Amino acid sequence: MKIAVDAMGGDYAPEQIVKGIELARDANPDISFQLFGKSDEIKKYLKNQGNIEIIDTDVVIDMGDEPVKAVRQKRKSSLVLAAQAVKDGKADAFYSAGSTGAILAAGLFVIGRIKGIDRPGLTTTLPVINKDGSIGQFLLIDVGANADTKVLNVYEYALMGRFYAQAIMGIKNPTIGLLNNGTEADKGDMKHREIHDLLLENKELNFIGNVESRELLNGAANVVVTDGFTGNAVLKSIEGTAGSMLNLIKSSIMSGGLKSKLGALMLKDVFKKIGKNLDYSQYGGAVFLGVKSPVIKSHGSSKAKTVKFAMDQIKQIVNSKMIPQVNDYLQSHEDEIQAIKDKVKSSK
Amino acid sequence: MKIAVDAMGGDYAPEQIVKGIELARDANPDISFQLFGKSDEIKKYLKNQGNIEIIDTDVVIDMGDEPVKAVRQKRKSSLVLAAQAVKDGKADAFYSAGSTGAILAAGLFVIGRIKGIDRPGLTTTLPVINKDGSIGQFLLIDVGANADTKVLNVYEYALMGRFYAQAIMGIKNPTIGLLNNGTEADKGDMKHREIHDLLLENKELNFIGNVESRELLNGAANVVVTDGFTGNAVLKSIEGTAGSMLNLIKSSIMSGGLKSKLGALMLKDVFKKIGKNLDYSQYGGAVFLGVKSPVIKSHGSSKAKTVKFAMDQIKQIVNSKMIPQVNDYLQSHEDEIQAIKDKVKSSK
Repeated sequence: MKIAVDAMGGDYAPEQIVKGIELARDANPDISFQLFGKSDEIKKYLKNQGNIEIIDTDVVIDMGDEPVKAVRQKRKSSLVLAAQAVKDGKADAFYSAGSTGAILAAGLFVIGRIKGIDRPGLTTTLPVINKDGSIGQFLLIDVGANADTKVLNVYEYALMGRFYAQAIMGIKNPTIGLLNNGTEADKGDMKHREIHDLLLENKELNFIGNVESRELLNGAANVVVTDGFTGNAVLKSIEGTAGSMLNLIKSSIMSGGLKSKLGALMLKDVFKKIGKNLDYSQYGGAVFLGVKSPVIKSHGSSKAKTVKFAMDQIKQIVNSKMIPQVNDYLQSHEDEIQAIKDKVKSSK
Repeated sequence: MKIAVDAMGGDYAPEQIVKGIELARDANPDISFQLFGKSDEIKKYLKNQGNIEIIDTDVVIDMGDEPVKAVRQKRKSSLVLAAQAVKDGKADAFYSAGSTGAILAAGLFVIGRIKGIDRPGLTTTLPVINKDGSIGQFLLIDVGANADTKVLNVYEYALMGRFYAQAIMGIKNPTIGLLNNGTEADKGDMKHREIHDLLLENKELNFIGNVESRELLNGAANVVVTDGFTGNAVLKSIEGTAGSMLNLIKSSIMSGGLKSKLGALMLKDVFKKIGKNLDYSQYGGAVFLGVKSPVIKSHGSSKAKTVKFAMDQIKQIVNSKMIPQVNDYLQSHEDEIQAIKDKVKSSK
């Protein structure tokens, strides 16, 4: 297996990217890596070049660049070259911690969509906090690849989310829920009612109906599908609220006098465990489902550990063959899906 | 001041509603209350009838009733009669902890909209957790009155949110932010870009641009406007995440052995303070901004304390004269707003 890595994407690139790749390489002798970027900078941080190939380029896509334009014009950028390596069959997956928009554009225009998928969706794994304190996980898709999502897109997210949950979470028949403003079947606007009914009709999907965002971390469903605008808002609300609560606990302890500081000291292990459970980086990166090969991005603020987790995740995706499975499913259900497309169009 | 109360709405009605009204009455000798509902049940819980009038009715709107139909057909229900009292000028505000849809329908069809407002928005106060641990608040509007929101609706939420923040939070020139999937001016779908530009044009509004849901609890803006679908999802994400984190902390402490239990005991005051700061009930209920008179609903699970806080909030709204102010603003800006309406329509 070979993974093409944009070594220049992210706030701490290339140092933390290079270090993360070395961690992944040391743990996975069966994977080789291609690092795209400024060769002299990469070499500064690289301790051991085993199984790592460096492809030198000076061009970098910045966070300020207009994504589509940048991907079209900066053909020699580390980001585009890494995507191109996948397109050319020289690598199995493409990773970057750079601009989300540019990674999506490279996925779409360089690597290309799976035949039958109209728009890729960005999916991410989030924690489920069970009543007994044990931690599970669920998938949220789309968390922001598309701001303008159509009925059919969300339907496709459900199809792909199912295969991804099987591959990554090892769940045979994952439950699928539609994020809505109530659990009843008639909730939401026209669009959501239409998506709800389409999902209900597909008997191969384990669709459990509408779910509310209040219940997401309680494990409302294994896979939660939504439009990219709402998914983005919900993801950031969860992250923001968790962060704010940790800050509130910290500052309350600090201002609570000696007793509370002692108490906090005694709870150190508990807080450490909580912090670890809520550490998003361990779930790897976000995946653009719907692109022909695995395209994974992690937060711009990613450090070595996160990069390493993302490589583990890529390995799982490639080994599980989930993308060929999605492909097969779409091809063997071509007529069915075409009928749905015609139906959705005629209802406009 | 007179407040019309649906004594039968909510999971703990009429007991907790009656108890809450007594708390409010004892604290506010200048307010009188009308309790609509089953007289014998109400009297069972009422200790002292001072300043409280009971209007007997057997009819109740249930959570399962279709809201608009129920409001049209159950004219003698406690909910509709309470709204009718406001319509007839016999009360200054309408309160219920019953079905959100039915309260909205009663607000729209019984009391009526403010002239110039197309659709009321449901607004709620949420905590801001400052870096130093101090707690502030911000307004989120719409949190679910409308699933299908138009550009103009969100613009109107900003106008009304401004007067509400002045009245309730005492902020002279509240900052207003548009919830979006990024802070840049060109973020979001066409609809959000259009709302952004309309808000930017109105120089009387202290519009600070797009805000992301990750920053809401950090105090991104005093008033955050959004469509009802996203607002509902974000509100429930915040509530759900806060609840899940508290559960995680509790269960981690309980499974953490003697040391962590001792530590928790020493942090009891800190946890109590945190719980109190995050207690939504102290912020009162959600307000349907855009109805001619104050219409306030609180959670179905509301207990006496929440009902009391909601009465405090109603008193503030009525005394501040914010609704007449919104009215005056809309009338004195009639031409301007008509021009915006024409512009929005022509851009479709």
